[in-house]
Amino acid sequence: MATQRITDFLATRRPEGPCLIVDLDVVRDNFHGFRKALPDSAIFYAVKANPAPEILSLLASLGSNFDCASVAEVEMALAAGASADRISYGNTIKKERDIARAHGLGVSLFAVDCVEEVEKVARAAPGARVFCRVLTDGAGAEWPLSRKFGCVPVMAIDVLEAAHRLGLVATGVSFHVGSQQTNTEAWDGALADAAFVFQTLAERGIFLTLVNMGGGFPTRYLKDVPTAEAYGRSIFDALRRHFGNHLPETIIEPGRGMVGDAGVIKAEVVLVSRKSATDENRWVYLDIGKFGGLAETMDEAIRYPIVTGRDDDQKEPCILAGPTCDSADVLYEKMPYPLPITLTVGDEVLIKGTGAYTTTYASVAFNGIEPLRAYII
Amino acid sequence: MATQRITDFLATRRPEGPCLIVDLDVVRDNFHGFRKALPDSAIFYAVKANPAPEILSLLASLGSNFDCASVAEVEMALAAGASADRISYGNTIKKERDIARAHGLGVSLFAVDCVEEVEKVARAAPGARVFCRVLTDGAGAEWPLSRKFGCVPVMAIDVLEAAHRLGLVATGVSFHVGSQQTNTEAWDGALADAAFVFQTLAERGIFLTLVNMGGGFPTRYLKDVPTAEAYGRSIFDALRRHFGNHLPETIIEPGRGMVGDAGVIKAEVVLVSRKSATDENRWVYLDIGKFGGLAETMDEAIRYPIVTGRDDDQKEPCILAGPTCDSADVLYEKMPYPLPITLTVGDEVLIKGTGAYTTTYASVAFNGIEPLRAYII
Repeated sequence: MATQRITDFLATRRPEGPCLIVDLDVVRDNFHGFRKALPDSAIFYAVKANPAPEILSLLASLGSNFDCASVAEVEMALAAGASADRISYGNTIKKERDIARAHGLGVSLFAVDCVEEVEKVARAAPGARVFCRVLTDGAGAEWPLSRKFGCVPVMAIDVLEAAHRLGLVATGVSFHVGSQQTNTEAWDGALADAAFVFQTLAERGIFLTLVNMGGGFPTRYLKDVPTAEAYGRSIFDALRRHFGNHLPETIIEPGRGMVGDAGVIKAEVVLVSRKSATDENRWVYLDIGKFGGLAETMDEAIRYPIVTGRDDDQKEPCILAGPTCDSADVLYEKMPYPLPITLTVGDEVLIKGTGAYTTTYASVAFNGIEPLRAYII
Repeated sequence: MATQRITDFLATRRPEGPCLIVDLDVVRDNFHGFRKALPDSAIFYAVKANPAPEILSLLASLGSNFDCASVAEVEMALAAGASADRISYGNTIKKERDIARAHGLGVSLFAVDCVEEVEKVARAAPGARVFCRVLTDGAGAEWPLSRKFGCVPVMAIDVLEAAHRLGLVATGVSFHVGSQQTNTEAWDGALADAAFVFQTLAERGIFLTLVNMGGGFPTRYLKDVPTAEAYGRSIFDALRRHFGNHLPETIIEPGRGMVGDAGVIKAEVVLVSRKSATDENRWVYLDIGKFGGLAETMDEAIRYPIVTGRDDDQKEPCILAGPTCDSADVLYEKMPYPLPITLTVGDEVLIKGTGAYTTTYASVAFNGIEPLRAYII
């Protein structure tokens, strides 16, 4: 269920229209959960997951660092009280003038995954530290990543050597095991690759110090502290296995794991209908859909828990869709969603686990619908 | 190629960052193209395709009507100079309070596809005209529509009877043959269904007058006037076949067909790289992607023509991706895109046919990136 604070907010404020409510207490708990699970790793919050100023300020005050995808996100982190040395420009795809702007703001840690990007950083941010993203296979993740980011480990060696040659500090290696990764062994393979890059470069006189283990931590592990600890221990064991007594500094970049379960979207049933008298499923239309913030239902990849006021009633599978005049704006159809047969026009529904990748994903004005409003409490 | 006006604008104004430029002369030509192809049909521009005020004002001055998806779009059409009697509230999914607001603004034509929606319209817009959307199979369309909108023809009869009983004017039937429909015969089946509904209701004393033939007109037919006319003639022949001498009023709702080819997006190459020394394809990263306005590349459904300044050079297939830290932000990978081997960081590229479904689809702030800017010239 939604937290008591969110329930109270909805009951007293009764906000109009679809909106996201984020409970900062949950964000705080999640931060402490990550710190407890991986006490030796620095936490770099992935700002793109939810850049609400209140969230960034809270995390800055708790001692978090920030993984930024753009100069705008760097500016948001600075505005929230983070100093520039706590900011990583973690996007491997940057315009040279944006690198220069970030460097001008004091940022000195940059992600790269090819020699071309290293050359840009060397010109625009001379002397900065760079880490090279390495491709992993992402097996075991609910959302395996594409090959968009990173290069093979043997190429990472060339990339970091080029950085060193061009006067940058070749700092380390990053990887991402895929979103909602449930297989703790996934980190093992990636850490083996990282250790290979460390060792090969050490033989050439370049000494890396940092392993950025990215995100991918599934939300549910945080709820259960022993499990979270077991999770962290598994990663720590893999570090030991591949780096022995020379453990590198490590970074983690949680985004969804930090804010996902802190947010609930309040929505309204706009229409319930059938397409024919013999239609097997009812269609339930909400006032929020793929273009209003629930883009991650694409291919029905994420199945959000939905709570209604009639959940004690009998349920039947429904096709769930959004309010726009776009036939692609359907949330769950391949696997219809069980909803109460008594659900009716005007009913309120709560969509849980929606604190990440909703407000900023929302379209700016599709169908004349305004972007998702958010209340951070 | 881009029109001379767009080319001149880019050369003289040199706008910073990715942006859309729409040439109003092309929109005007398209409007006249539709009018010529289907001289007896009223044109209702689908505002959602591109609601830029300059486009709406031009179309209002040319005599266009407007198909609106929300109250906000109704207000935009009114602000552009359209009177309320030239506006259709074409979304079958409406909150009752939004129906009331639109009715308060003078709108009296509403889409429905179930009895539940009819009841809302009867309460919130007493006496209004309604048309019922009928499901078609969409065969032959590049983007067949889902079953999200409409009901089977036999249910449409019940829906329109209910409207009549509740004091509304049961006006007609609408359908949509699917986006970028290239099979002119697609209209034939849908018009046969419409005629069936007309006839059945006439036998019960309810006389429909309107067939809303929706959108789906592919852009390319407009370029070639004889073909556009042949297209219109094929639809007209189907009308004759199914309605005989009692031709109904007809409406068409072009969106993409009206503005798609009027727009060009200017973008910049941010990075060109390979993932390994033996990588078959280069990766080309632009400063615009799925979240910045090119959402219709989803599943690589739409393949936009891309023009570079190096198109005389040899080309090789590239994987084309956007600038965000999101692994789903890849435009063309299953079918790599042939681009010049000389293409390099900082090069400008023009993405053609992007006048529709780009500016409003853009995310509001994903990765801190601002929505797509547009220049309507």
